[in-house]
Amino acid sequence: MSRFFSKKYNALTPYTPGEQPKDQKYIKLNTNESPFPPTPAVCEAVKNAAAHVNLYSDPECRELVSTWCDTMGTAPDEVLFTNGSDEILNFAFMAFCDAEHPAVFPNISYGFYPVFAMLNGIPYEEIPLAKDFSVNVEDYIGVKKTVILANPNAPTGIALPLCDIERIVASNPDHVVVIDEAYVDFGGESAIPLIRKYDNLLVTGTFSKSRSMAGARLGFGIAHPALIRDLSTVKYSTNPYNVNAMTQAAGVATLKENALAMERCQAVIENREYTARELARLGFTMTNSRANFLFAAHPLLSGETVYTELRKRGILVRHFSKSEIANYNRITVGSREEMEALISALEEILKNPN
Amino acid sequence: MSRFFSKKYNALTPYTPGEQPKDQKYIKLNTNESPFPPTPAVCEAVKNAAAHVNLYSDPECRELVSTWCDTMGTAPDEVLFTNGSDEILNFAFMAFCDAEHPAVFPNISYGFYPVFAMLNGIPYEEIPLAKDFSVNVEDYIGVKKTVILANPNAPTGIALPLCDIERIVASNPDHVVVIDEAYVDFGGESAIPLIRKYDNLLVTGTFSKSRSMAGARLGFGIAHPALIRDLSTVKYSTNPYNVNAMTQAAGVATLKENALAMERCQAVIENREYTARELARLGFTMTNSRANFLFAAHPLLSGETVYTELRKRGILVRHFSKSEIANYNRITVGSREEMEALISALEEILKNPN
Repeated sequence: MSRFFSKKYNALTPYTPGEQPKDQKYIKLNTNESPFPPTPAVCEAVKNAAAHVNLYSDPECRELVSTWCDTMGTAPDEVLFTNGSDEILNFAFMAFCDAEHPAVFPNISYGFYPVFAMLNGIPYEEIPLAKDFSVNVEDYIGVKKTVILANPNAPTGIALPLCDIERIVASNPDHVVVIDEAYVDFGGESAIPLIRKYDNLLVTGTFSKSRSMAGARLGFGIAHPALIRDLSTVKYSTNPYNVNAMTQAAGVATLKENALAMERCQAVIENREYTARELARLGFTMTNSRANFLFAAHPLLSGETVYTELRKRGILVRHFSKSEIANYNRITVGSREEMEALISALEEILKNPN
Repeated sequence: MSRFFSKKYNALTPYTPGEQPKDQKYIKLNTNESPFPPTPAVCEAVKNAAAHVNLYSDPECRELVSTWCDTMGTAPDEVLFTNGSDEILNFAFMAFCDAEHPAVFPNISYGFYPVFAMLNGIPYEEIPLAKDFSVNVEDYIGVKKTVILANPNAPTGIALPLCDIERIVASNPDHVVVIDEAYVDFGGESAIPLIRKYDNLLVTGTFSKSRSMAGARLGFGIAHPALIRDLSTVKYSTNPYNVNAMTQAAGVATLKENALAMERCQAVIENREYTARELARLGFTMTNSRANFLFAAHPLLSGETVYTELRKRGILVRHFSKSEIANYNRITVGSREEMEALISALEEILKNPN
């Protein structure tokens, strides 16, 4: 760091995104992208938006908001769109956490939560997962802190039922509970229906995974209008034109084909079940993932060995060095062909361990 | 604000972007957009990028950085791209200001500077402009605070010569000086050549104005590699995929046609000079603008009247309520046809001043 860098960031360790190597062509199973490219209608919408990109994008994202509401049944003042869901999560840490409202989240979850807390100078507590990697719901009942839970959780893929989410929200009425639903469309239960019952619930989501738009950066928050107003205050004090015009157009076109997106999620779920069976056949143990990835370990090979050997064979998975999960890898569920290639490679690795 | 909103934002007043009304078709001279649409090559590049938007964008923006460096003669570690220049400015406030390093900027300048300061809890001082709206350089010599100067300044359009910028940078060696060059391509002198001489200089810029990409959101910072590393730490702790794939592609294509972009700036400059002559003929007084807008007042009409009467006639300009400049309007320089329509409307307004 330079001699000018503010001392308030002395302890800040940035998030490390999944690697995006360019040295060769990889089967990328490391960043939970969709294997399905955007449809022709999405590409056409982007092309049309590009022709007017000399003009500012709509800071209120009005067409996107109204299309979302038509599709998803929320009201316009219950929605805020952002530049990916990292942005809405950061806004939530900014708006709803401070020294009097520390953050709390699992010790194994999206690795960005502690970074957002450190960035904003917010005290935080990480609660250990249970031995089976599940979230112990009782840990969050009446915890009197701002709760951040990914549901399904990452990188475990384990989902809490909606009744448990509701218990957590209901038991912390004076603190915001953020439910990060990046992976909900692959088999979780969304908490969005609860936002009209609880004024302290913020549900966040992304178009990156289930809607094939990782490269376009589109995230959102759904909550009681008063929370959305707070988050909008942060947005208009940070980056009013945060969602560019091409991404807004892609989002509108994607929502108009929402049934197709949900069919594609179903295909990913089927590939996940296929892959889980095959991995089990090879001796892997796994969590019960409700996301577009599997979280798998092998009794004979370290997590790092699996990662390294796959990488040598042109397949990227995500390995985390944290000791509790160092034996595991998070493997994105891609196309059936990609999954078959993964299984073949693992069979080969297991035949020649070392 | 909700009962959950952090008290640290009690005094926060968000930035108000220029209006984007949809009730009728306006001649938009209120947000300093380029009148030139993106070229076919830019649209084609965006279309190609859209086809792969299911994959994450490159967080390092490698192709964009290398194309920038080929075009502009900087080194890759001297450049950081962001989601519009608001983002790099916010990153600069975050990284280089704190209680020990208050911010200082003119009282009449980009209205977002005090918002960034408030958002980040940074003490700040606003130094009044001179009576003629120019920046008094002596006010910033050895000021021992983090200096933020728009050059050319907005909404006045007045530019400082590079020698004055250098004096300010050189006289504050222990504080970062941020020069916001959003409008530099319309007749200002860029401070980029000074970044290798001064490790405390950050130059920020945008593709919104001179490169016809307002709706795509692409900003940048140019500085000594140590400052860029600090800003990258903030980026990777905030939103690593901050620049989407379509905008990266548009930026690359735009830079490959850099000569065309600079020709278009020349056309805007010629329209500015034409419009300035016409406004002077109608009795307006103006600053000597080096930007893609004019800052004009009329002795017989209040600034608000000019704004309101133009709006009735389908022409939007930007009026600021701040008392020192309430008699003025900031008028974007658009196409020649738009400028002719502006002058005709003003002639009509002046004939019937009620």
